[in-house]
Amino acid sequence: MIRSAVAEDVPTIVELIRELAEYEKALDQAQATEEQLHAALFGPEPAVFGLIAEDDESCETVGFALWFRNFSTWTGRHGIYLEDLYVRPEARGGGHGKALLTELARIAVQRGYSRLEWAVLDWNDPAIGFYRSLGARPMDEWTTFRLTGEALQQLGER
Amino acid sequence: MIRSAVAEDVPTIVELIRELAEYEKALDQAQATEEQLHAALFGPEPAVFGLIAEDDESCETVGFALWFRNFSTWTGRHGIYLEDLYVRPEARGGGHGKALLTELARIAVQRGYSRLEWAVLDWNDPAIGFYRSLGARPMDEWTTFRLTGEALQQLGER
Repeated sequence: MIRSAVAEDVPTIVELIRELAEYEKALDQAQATEEQLHAALFGPEPAVFGLIAEDDESCETVGFALWFRNFSTWTGRHGIYLEDLYVRPEARGGGHGKALLTELARIAVQRGYSRLEWAVLDWNDPAIGFYRSLGARPMDEWTTFRLTGEALQQLGER
Repeated sequence: MIRSAVAEDVPTIVELIRELAEYEKALDQAQATEEQLHAALFGPEPAVFGLIAEDDESCETVGFALWFRNFSTWTGRHGIYLEDLYVRPEARGGGHGKALLTELARIAVQRGYSRLEWAVLDWNDPAIGFYRSLGARPMDEWTTFRLTGEALQQLGER
């Protein structure tokens, strides 16, 4: 039901990323190409990893998770940062999202990682309820800041 | 003034991590040991990287930054996640924080990374003002969820 992504999954992963971006009302920002995904996931020394959720009967891909290693200076250990988790609307309620998160938790526990983290859009109540039911807690005190585009370019060229 | 961390910096980095945790009112959570930091930063295929800020005259370490690569499925590119940035109180106002961020932005631009990101405690107004002045923007719509400890263990052992 859950397996590691292989190079042949890249076109489907790009499709799913675009579906997720559409759900997040940000389709215009989903610019990633198959070439980029292929290089990041299957190039030398990859730093990004993928899981695929398949339907048990049809073996069709119904969802995916993409993650990378983070690091905590408090615990001194690596953790998993889940960049994307997506299950196709027609496959929801079938336990695929939970199976993906369970597999990530299994990887984390097995490797001695201290945390599994991800970001949620504040209006996504169904997701938030689901994450809380698994024991995840919001890091309410913290806000992520981002430097990108022109501002990043300018600072970097100083 | 800014240089890459080397193995000899590890004891100082652990000291600085503890100073930062104290400032963040979380000293009890700062558990990282020299062994852990050494393995993460200087073991085989490290996934965490450090920068050291030194005083120009005394050459003493006055601050540090620790970062790892993240990945955006929207841009299809890696980015820099700044896990910790700290400048000792007695050295503040000397431009060390800005110099560390500038070096990180330079690394990002040079490698074609799309973003430089980090988390800020919501009550840390001086830091927030400083980050905004550099052109960084808060990702207000998003909240980070964390699964750790018992809850992570339980999910991972299913």
